[in-house]
Order: sequence, then C-alpha cells, then structure tokens
Amino acid sequence: MIVLFSDFGAIDPYVGQVKARLSVEAPGQLVVDLLHHSPDFNAHAGAHLLAAFAVGFPPGSVFLAVVDPGVGTARAGAVVTAGGHWYVGPDNGLLSVVAGRDAQAKIWKIEWQPESLSSTFHGRDLFAVIAAEIARGEFPAHKLSPAKTLQVEFDIGDLARIIYIDHYGNAFTGIRATGISPHSRVSVRGMELIHGETFGRLGRGQGFWFSNSVGLLELAVNRGSAASDFNLQVGDEVTVLKPN
Amino acid sequence: MIVLFSDFGAIDPYVGQVKARLSVEAPGQLVVDLLHHSPDFNAHAGAHLLAAFAVGFPPGSVFLAVVDPGVGTARAGAVVTAGGHWYVGPDNGLLSVVAGRDAQAKIWKIEWQPESLSSTFHGRDLFAVIAAEIARGEFPAHKLSPAKTLQVEFDIGDLARIIYIDHYGNAFTGIRATGISPHSRVSVRGMELIHGETFGRLGRGQGFWFSNSVGLLELAVNRGSAASDFNLQVGDEVTVLKPN
Amino acid sequence: MIVLFSDFGAIDPYVGQVKARLSVEAPGQLVVDLLHHSPDFNAHAGAHLLAAFAVGFPPGSVFLAVVDPGVGTARAGAVVTAGGHWYVGPDNGLLSVVAGRDAQAKIWKIEWQPESLSSTFHGRDLFAVIAAEIARGEFPAHKLSPAKTLQVEFDIGDLARIIYIDHYGNAFTGIRATGISPHSRVSVRGMELIHGETFGRLGRGQGFWFSNSVGLLELAVNRGSAASDFNLQVGDEVTVLKPN
Repeated sequence: MIVLFSDFGAIDPYVGQVKARLSVEAPGQLVVDLLHHSPDFNAHAGAHLLAAFAVGFPPGSVFLAVVDPGVGTARAGAVVTAGGHWYVGPDNGLLSVVAGRDAQAKIWKIEWQPESLSSTFHGRDLFAVIAAEIARGEFPAHKLSPAKTLQVEFDIGDLARIIYIDHYGNAFTGIRATGISPHSRVSVRGMELIHGETFGRLGRGQGFWFSNSVGLLELAVNRGSAASDFNLQVGDEVTVLKPN
Repeated sequence: MIVLFSDFGAIDPYVGQVKARLSVEAPGQLVVDLLHHSPDFNAHAGAHLLAAFAVGFPPGSVFLAVVDPGVGTARAGAVVTAGGHWYVGPDNGLLSVVAGRDAQAKIWKIEWQPESLSSTFHGRDLFAVIAAEIARGEFPAHKLSPAKTLQVEFDIGDLARIIYIDHYGNAFTGIRATGISPHSRVSVRGMELIHGETFGRLGRGQGFWFSNSVGLLELAVNRGSAASDFNLQVGDEVTVLKPN
Repeated sequence: MIVLFSDFGAIDPYVGQVKARLSVEAPGQLVVDLLHHSPDFNAHAGAHLLAAFAVGFPPGSVFLAVVDPGVGTARAGAVVTAGGHWYVGPDNGLLSVVAGRDAQAKIWKIEWQPESLSSTFHGRDLFAVIAAEIARGEFPAHKLSPAKTLQVEFDIGDLARIIYIDHYGNAFTGIRATGISPHSRVSVRGMELIHGETFGRLGRGQGFWFSNSVGLLELAVNRGSAASDFNLQVGDEVTVLKPN
C-alpha cells in the first residue's frame, strides 16, 4: 500500500498526476489518500501529523510524504524506515519525527535524480518513483546512500500547538494525550477547556478537549466549530494545565 | 463494492483511515466515495440523500454510511438490507429511510464491539469492519442480532427541506420529483421558481426547479448559484405549489 | 486507465456516481481523478487545462472530460484520439485544443443515446459508458460516426488568461512557457512579475512567474497567495512583456 500525505490540496490537479505516475511505476498497488491538506509549507506541523496518523496503517505501508516549500533548492530527499513503515519525501524535517521516535529507524539520502525533473514537483518526478520501487519490493539501494541522521531534525517531543483544523472546526494539537489526566484543563487563546470523553455526552455548543482517534489532544465544540467559536488557527500555542 | 457515505469531509484525514482499514479487512474490494459532505451531524438530511443516491448503485453494493453525532454514547449500530443493497452505520435514523421504503428490508442490531474502539471514530473501528465482512461475502451473523425495527426511524415520506447544496450552489430537496407537474411552482424563502427541464435551455441567471439525476426536486440558477442568489441553506423549507 | 476531468466538484456526490457506473461498465480499470474543479461552466479554460495536463499521462489513457453547461440541449458528444490518448466528452470546445494540436487526431461524433438518459448528467449516463468501452478495448464504432472536425473549435494557440487558481493561490495561465525568455516580465492586473525558477530561491512573499510542472506559465508568491495578494481571478488577462 502506498499512502499519500501532502499539502498538494485534495481538489487541485496534483494528486492525480502523482497517481498516474504511481500507476506506471507500481502497477496494481493500492494507493490511499491520507491527507492532502497538511498545513501548506509547514513541515513542522506535517511531521507531527504524519507521526500520529501513520501508526494505524498496516505494516509495510509506504508513505509518500511531501510538504516541500524548498522544492528546487539544494535540500535533499530521504527514505526512512521506522515503526514498520517506509517513508519517502524531502529532508526538511517532515520525516524526522517518525524517524526520531523509533530507535531502530534507518535513514537513506536520495542520491538519484530522474532525467526529467521539474523544479517544482519532486513529489511526482522523484519521490513517487522511489516510493513505487519500495512498494513493489525492489528497494532502490543504488539510488540511495545510507545516512546516520536526517539533515533537518525537529524535536521529537510533543508540539504544543494547533497543527490541523478539520472541516468540523475541530483543532488537533501536536500533544499526545496518553497519560494526561482527564482532570486537566487545556488553555488556548485565553480560553480554558475541560475534558470530555466523547461528543455525544456534552451539551450542544460546549467546548472541550479529548484524546482523538489517533491519540492526539484535540479541541472541539459539540455540534459546533471550535475554530470559529474560539478563533483558532494552525500554529496557536496550547497549554495543558496541571489539575489543582 | 463498498460505497462510502459520511460527513467525514473529503479533505480531512478520516476517509483515508477508513480505506486503510477496509484494505486490510476486505482486500481487493473496490471502494467508491459517494459523499463525505453529507450535512454535518444531520442524520435526517443524510437519510434522504442516502435513499436517493443509493438507487443507482449496483446490486450487492455495501454502503458504509456514517453521520454520527452521537458516537460514543449508547446509540446502537445497525445493518440493513434493502433495495438490493447493504447498509452499515449508526442506528440514529440515517438508515431508516432506505429501510422503511422497502417492505422486504431486513434489519440487524450490531452487538459486537472490537477490542480497540475509539470513542469518536466508530466508522473506522466498528462499522468498517462489519461492512468489510459483508462485502467479502462472510455475513457476520455472530456479531449481530436480528431486529424487527430500527431504534430511530424517520418519516419515510418526502422531506420538504433543502438537504444538500453542491459546489455550483444548486440546492437538493428531499422531495421526490416524480409525479410533480411541470406546471407547478416551488416556493423557498419567499421566492417562487418555475420548472425548467435542463440548464442549457434557460437564460443565464434564471432560477428554476428540476428533477435531478437521482430524481430529487432541485433548485438551481442557470450558470449561477441558487444558494447565493436566494440565500439558501440546508434545512430551509420548500413548498411545491399546485398549479392553478 | 480512465482519467476523470470535470467541473463536477471533488466534494459533491457526482464523481462517485460516475465511478460506480465505470465499475460496472469497465470492471477492474484503474480510474484516476485528475481534476474536478476545472472552472465551472467554462469549456474554454477547461480545454487548455486538459491539453496541458494530459501530456504526462500514459499512452492509451482514456480521458472522460466533462465541463458541460449545455447538457440536455442539442450539443453533440464527441470522441477524440490525439497525442496517444482518448478523450470522451461534450462537443462544446472542451476537446478542441487537444484535437487541434495533433495533426493526426481523429474525431467521432457520438450518435448513441442510452435508454435512460438524465437531462442533466450525461457524464454518468452517456460519456462514462463510451469511455468504459474504449478503456476495455471494445471501441464502440456502431455508436459513433467519424467526423472531420468538431462542431465547436477554440483557437489552439495559447490562451493569455488565468485558467485555474490552486489552493495555494497560484494562478495558471493558458500560456505555454517554453521559449519565453526568463528576462521577460509578465503583466497581470497592472502588476509586473519577474521570472523565478523555483519557490525556494525567492524571498517570502515575493511574486514571480515560472514554467510550471506541466509547462504552463504560472503566477505565484513564495509562501503566499498570488490570488489574494494580486486579487486574481480565472479569466484575468495576462501579458508577456518582451525583455528590453
């Protein structure tokens, strides 16, 4: 399975081009769209989203992960294996959280360039080709060089910011919720939110935080929009307040 | 074929997780996205949309239908077979219009729970698993109990409201257009619209109603947006005026 | 491979219906979504987008291309083979740029109508069926009549207007960038933009033009939105200024 994770946009003509390339390079492989609205140009938010969402995918899944504002510059490309998955994308930090959270992770630098490489779409021209080779079981060792580290590495701890806002207006943070007491309150933009276990048990319009389905601390309003009600944006700082 | 119908959002990272689960539970099955923007939290509108759109799908199609504001509460899950199709989703009325319109429909309550069940994403953790089993031809009778009725049932007649607005600004109603005289006018928000057979035969900017491609009465403006021009919203009441 | 190109909207329930039809008519065929937000009702912009994007698809790909404001009127349907690809859609100019740019192109008029043809959704009821037959290798000659020309033909030269704006706010023009000097400036809405080779080499917020990944002249702002910053819309005129 090849899993697509990007900021390409779900309604623009970029994903289709990547899929056409994959259909040629890895015919018959299942291709699943995970997310094409990772925050634009924001490898940091993307790195934490990718780490949270990848967990639930089957072993051996190959993630083609591209949030790449530096496309066309000298930034390298990387292949990572971590947590039973493969990752292919730019070496700009996007893959560094999944890599850093697995002590057994292995890293390669992509040395290869295709003959025809657009300066703005390495996702299609370069990373898709490498991902396809891995997915079809033909690891392209000759196109890669082993590396001890990635060139850009983010802190692998929690990111105490809003990293995604969904169409309901729910706001994902980069904070892993496991171990946080349900008596804790969460502060954002001067608001303090209590814990709620699930939507259906809260009053309509009530704000709360909860551990979402991939284990991140998420801010929501029951049958409403946390983003609108609290004026939330990607990047906003979030603080978990210890219970008294 | 597994058909996805939800309010999960087409650009959020929910559908991809469902597809990953389906790829494991029902490998090789075709999965088709019908709609992921059924109005948020609105099982009533969803029930009428699902009933209208399901008709055109091949016999045996399995609809994974999830609009589930009560996720995590005691509301049950249900399996329905009606009109030659299968439906799996929450028992909150969403499946009640397809069930109620087929006198031969059969209903089961879902008794099973997976070992790992998130409190907010039964679509992925529970309903997808049941849908996959049905799709691969292994009806999970041991996870279900036959039921005479659904616990929540909506009126199976027409819903005289706007139930969906598409990106052109066309507004679907829950009124089935068959049998409505083309001499009838339709009233919404104080406007009265005449019948038009098709877009290309009307003046630019002219509003009209027509029987859409799934047989629902739809409000439109030729090469314009009925939603913007008439300030329409999901839930607005619509009245068919008898011809004089 | 069947490639979908339309103004149906990526989040509306139209594409799913087309895919269900294709799954019946051409089982097992890969179906790739290229674009469902070609500008609404705008066959002219669509014709140039289609011509630019089709180039990268594998030989033999069948494009189901539908931007069809005249659906339900007497406008004909057409099949075109050009550039190693097949195209099926309305004869309203949409296919005329791909056809006109290949001197070896062949054209057929669609004579057939299905027994059940909705007046508003020929993409599903008619064009999808023809596309499926071509994709599965059973050219439906008995449903077609050879034609020397399309009934509606656009100029096959460049279209010096904005033809698409993506979610980043980048604006595609219908101008092919090959051969345009990087010393040229481009004028739009009274602004003049210089050439930039790629995003990562420009200052944040700087506007520029570049040759995009399908060879069209595109207007962008590094890590910003050209559409917002310069108030751009589809249809805006664009002028390439000769270097002094």
